[in-house]
Amino acid sequence: MDISLGPTARKRISESTIHRISLYYRALSFLEKENFETVSSKELARREKLTPAQVRKDLSFFGSFGTRGLGYPVAELKAKVSKILGIDRVWRVALVGVGNIGSALVSYKEFIKQGFHIVKLFDNDQRKIGSNHKGIIVSDIKNLRTELQEGHIEMVVVAVPATVAQYIVDDIVKADVKAILNFAPINLKVPPDVHVRNENMAMELEYLSFAMVNDHAPKGAGKV
Amino acid sequence: MDISLGPTARKRISESTIHRISLYYRALSFLEKENFETVSSKELARREKLTPAQVRKDLSFFGSFGTRGLGYPVAELKAKVSKILGIDRVWRVALVGVGNIGSALVSYKEFIKQGFHIVKLFDNDQRKIGSNHKGIIVSDIKNLRTELQEGHIEMVVVAVPATVAQYIVDDIVKADVKAILNFAPINLKVPPDVHVRNENMAMELEYLSFAMVNDHAPKGAGKV
Repeated sequence: MDISLGPTARKRISESTIHRISLYYRALSFLEKENFETVSSKELARREKLTPAQVRKDLSFFGSFGTRGLGYPVAELKAKVSKILGIDRVWRVALVGVGNIGSALVSYKEFIKQGFHIVKLFDNDQRKIGSNHKGIIVSDIKNLRTELQEGHIEMVVVAVPATVAQYIVDDIVKADVKAILNFAPINLKVPPDVHVRNENMAMELEYLSFAMVNDHAPKGAGKV
Repeated sequence: MDISLGPTARKRISESTIHRISLYYRALSFLEKENFETVSSKELARREKLTPAQVRKDLSFFGSFGTRGLGYPVAELKAKVSKILGIDRVWRVALVGVGNIGSALVSYKEFIKQGFHIVKLFDNDQRKIGSNHKGIIVSDIKNLRTELQEGHIEMVVVAVPATVAQYIVDDIVKADVKAILNFAPINLKVPPDVHVRNENMAMELEYLSFAMVNDHAPKGAGKV
């Protein structure tokens, strides 16, 4: 069964579509656990506060299946969605910067649940290097490049101060890692084949302050 | 100067527009610090990897200003943007659940920088109640409702396990708080006048795994 997306479908997929697909994945996981065999676009829409038409459009990326009147087969749809999202496998992840946010992420259950396994930790603080976080020994940032390569790391979470983030990311790029989740409040420069996502929790609070001040919530409700 | 949005403009503003406005705010803060007096839509677009037309369209929500050839006045635009986002003031924020993520958020500098001040902490763990985190004493979750009201709390960050999140949110709603940032991986039920944003860091990694598997990054690069 080849369910990867053709180039046309791929180009049509926007950030907000991926976002909704991640939401469907979570709804489908829940439904599977509750022993539901099928689910209608109407029910998925209700759960995620979308329209059934939107759900059907999104799911049409995965080819035509689902039976009119019966809905989508939960287990099969979940398998397809997880394959498209690339979470039908385990990813080897490293984390740089074992500060407040970094330490919290080491034990973040949602990462493990989705197959993102943090297997390497790095810091530049001599007091942290050699210490044990959830069974992982913190490595010296000096060895970042070689250890990323030798550890076959595919993704790196960057949780360091903004002042040093670019310097560290340059090293990560040299280690041939193509995916970076950045918590530093800075626009990183990377080559076009390296994927970067930026995370800033304050921006979530700004949606709320906007909604409070303008008495109007923007469409969508973020990530569950 | 009244720069609040009329009902028509408000309705047109989508989640992704707010997102971009938050990005503009950060770019403008940087430009102001670097003593730039004006900025063109082209320069803002370049910084945020958008088109100049998109930038002009977004900024047109704030009324017509900016001079052709000269660009937008940085300080004035920043002031307008911060007022629209509701970050031209301080917000009193409480945090429930002083676990790994919760503790990290107490010292999260991006919150303070944008005016989101965590002034109350709650937990149900007897070992944590009464302890001091960055000068704030952790309160007993039993007193959540009264302490939220007496403390004039306007926003609550929920960083508790999914199993208890709804129960706690019901109490927050009873305390008349209208804005919740939820880190628990669960769809919360709240009355229509309560704004909820969900934060799930694993979903950021799913954008990356999608991009790696499909060799295609979705448009947009998350939050800086």
